[in-house]
Amino acid sequence: MDILALNCGSSSVKYQLFDWAKKEVIAKGMVERVIIGDSFIMHEVPGRETYREESECPDHQVAIDLIIKTLTDPVHGVLKDIKNISAIGHRVVHGGEKFTCSVLIDDKVLDAVKEVQHLAPLHNPPNIAGIEAAQAILPDVPQVAIFDTAFHQTMPEHSYLYPLPYEWYEKYGVRRYGFHGTSHLYVSKRAAVLLGKAPKDTNIITMHIGNGVSHCAIANGVSVDTSMGLTPLEGAVMGTRCGDIDPAIPAFMMQKENLSAKEIDSILNKKSGVLGITGRFTDRREVIEHAGNGDRLCKLALDIEAYRLRKYIGSYMAAIGKLDAVVFTAGVGEMGWPIREKTIEGLEHLGIKLDKERNKSAMTRKRETLITTDDSPVKVYVIPTDEELVFTEDVAAILEGTYTDHMQFEYSFSRPDFVRK
Amino acid sequence: MDILALNCGSSSVKYQLFDWAKKEVIAKGMVERVIIGDSFIMHEVPGRETYREESECPDHQVAIDLIIKTLTDPVHGVLKDIKNISAIGHRVVHGGEKFTCSVLIDDKVLDAVKEVQHLAPLHNPPNIAGIEAAQAILPDVPQVAIFDTAFHQTMPEHSYLYPLPYEWYEKYGVRRYGFHGTSHLYVSKRAAVLLGKAPKDTNIITMHIGNGVSHCAIANGVSVDTSMGLTPLEGAVMGTRCGDIDPAIPAFMMQKENLSAKEIDSILNKKSGVLGITGRFTDRREVIEHAGNGDRLCKLALDIEAYRLRKYIGSYMAAIGKLDAVVFTAGVGEMGWPIREKTIEGLEHLGIKLDKERNKSAMTRKRETLITTDDSPVKVYVIPTDEELVFTEDVAAILEGTYTDHMQFEYSFSRPDFVRK
Repeated sequence: MDILALNCGSSSVKYQLFDWAKKEVIAKGMVERVIIGDSFIMHEVPGRETYREESECPDHQVAIDLIIKTLTDPVHGVLKDIKNISAIGHRVVHGGEKFTCSVLIDDKVLDAVKEVQHLAPLHNPPNIAGIEAAQAILPDVPQVAIFDTAFHQTMPEHSYLYPLPYEWYEKYGVRRYGFHGTSHLYVSKRAAVLLGKAPKDTNIITMHIGNGVSHCAIANGVSVDTSMGLTPLEGAVMGTRCGDIDPAIPAFMMQKENLSAKEIDSILNKKSGVLGITGRFTDRREVIEHAGNGDRLCKLALDIEAYRLRKYIGSYMAAIGKLDAVVFTAGVGEMGWPIREKTIEGLEHLGIKLDKERNKSAMTRKRETLITTDDSPVKVYVIPTDEELVFTEDVAAILEGTYTDHMQFEYSFSRPDFVRK
Repeated sequence: MDILALNCGSSSVKYQLFDWAKKEVIAKGMVERVIIGDSFIMHEVPGRETYREESECPDHQVAIDLIIKTLTDPVHGVLKDIKNISAIGHRVVHGGEKFTCSVLIDDKVLDAVKEVQHLAPLHNPPNIAGIEAAQAILPDVPQVAIFDTAFHQTMPEHSYLYPLPYEWYEKYGVRRYGFHGTSHLYVSKRAAVLLGKAPKDTNIITMHIGNGVSHCAIANGVSVDTSMGLTPLEGAVMGTRCGDIDPAIPAFMMQKENLSAKEIDSILNKKSGVLGITGRFTDRREVIEHAGNGDRLCKLALDIEAYRLRKYIGSYMAAIGKLDAVVFTAGVGEMGWPIREKTIEGLEHLGIKLDKERNKSAMTRKRETLITTDDSPVKVYVIPTDEELVFTEDVAAILEGTYTDHMQFEYSFSRPDFVRK
């Protein structure tokens, strides 16, 4: 059984073909510049040189067609027959309140995804286009939706509802949804394994820190709060997104600089965060390097980012009670030891005792590392995330009929003997 | 020496006359409906019936003139001569970055207050009008400005700077300022007394919860973080203000309901918070009562408010290190025991052990009450605030030349033998 994973953006389609029997990725790649012109595919097969082909893709259907053709190409492909694809999994960013777990896509599901597309106008429409294109090309293959929001649907009302006019919730669905669900799921299950406990007996704070950043408070194995909100703009400092600010600032700046709602939204999403403070960088490696060379704004960006991460840890400790572990994951969380050090140093009074050497040594996607001392009451782990594995296992389990939701279903990585490839 | 305190709003002037020798308020009151027509004064003198007089006040100068006339009136007044007023203190909401403590007003100070009025367009202009009016009426009396923001000017850059384009800070002063400074100052000094420590040796979280709500993280006696920001909209859930939300929501709702920047600002400030959730109430006593009678949205409003208060406590514990005490103050903080209970119950893992009976008994402005158990590592106090006392002592000390800033100057209420009147 081969599973094709699709992640359709507004002008790109990422794909990955997974051999379920061998538990291996057999090909992956991306079609870029879909719709906008000069499209091309980059196709990677382990052990071969990356193959690139230019081919116009005026819409997502042509792009997915190109992917299928490339996968079955006698020279560059990996499949003898298109029929080897047993299922297609689609990443869907926003599932609104309807989806609490991954689901097999039928007309009802597709309609529900369309109903909430106004909540993620940049993301859901291409996700929907991808689903419809794949259905047209491979009408007999089961298609599964995996939502970024589903993991957080266990949040209680007092976490997800904003202190805003209640009719905004009823009319427009204005509430906290949260994102990065598959990543928070994966690392929290792995942390439970490292702790030697069942997920339902663990309280964990997960810190997904990449270009996008979100945190999750996990009590008894389920998400009870998360830092991203209605959109992925809320929460921590990000590469280009501001995260938490005074909600009066958008209207204040619109009046100061005569900006439209769309323009202010674009600045808060694309010109703020680490880029806004430093004026130059989004990549934390560059920020760390220049801070080390005495750049004042780079140092400040790191101080602000770490200070706000630290406050989220405290905040979620108050929210969920006795804490077992904090987990750092994603690009910066896995590699950026100076940011982790700044974040958790001096939190001994909250039971977190950093081991500086262990922390410095954790700069790899190949190992899960404890970065607190052996006697630290709260453990802190660096755990490389694997959203694709959650994705693939959800799809396979839905086909096999063994999946219900993440607390009932046993993932391979929830087992003590799991070894990551 | 009599000190006149003035608090000029857009359509009102509150006043209080303080006899410095006797340490007593000898008269207080308010002129309402200034500028907008049908103005009147309500004048209170201890031991007499409240006096009300209708008198048109087309501007702040006429209103302050009316106050002076009433104070020196042979029948309703308390002063034989206007010359008994030795100083006038003005509450000024926004001092920007220029003012770190209370100051004697001269032309330079007035210019500086005018320079930052764009940061508080509803508050600073009437404050300025009041200063200019009082200067015109009593040109020889020293005038002092007491700023809501001054106490928070000790915040480090990583607390006050937002992850936004840095030029917004340079060009428009977009940063966290914080408000309620005199209240946070007063209750943190009192908490130090109750702890038997010098303020410089204390780490305290102060929770000012009234119609407006702000929290302050105080390390070694000085403010290092606070929940209100550029404006008083950020932070906790308030009576009608939303506090922290996804910063994408203003632009999202502007597009949904075709609102202008001013309109969305007005909804976030006046139709949100507890009023937004319940649809009916801002007064927490009504919310508590209806929640008790089973009203779902009132119960939800309390849950959201308390949950967010609890998260701020955790967040500031992470920010300032080992904590000595948490203080609840202002209307809801002093009287709303159910909200306090919901906020701190179950925080034993953070060293806070609530004593439920003590907490229930703390519903008075006449007593300072410990509401944790005797063995609680972190103490929680309910301390009635007294912003007027800070105000008056700042004015008197500036006249006497003994005031520099709040860490150097010894307030009466910083002394162990202080008794509040």
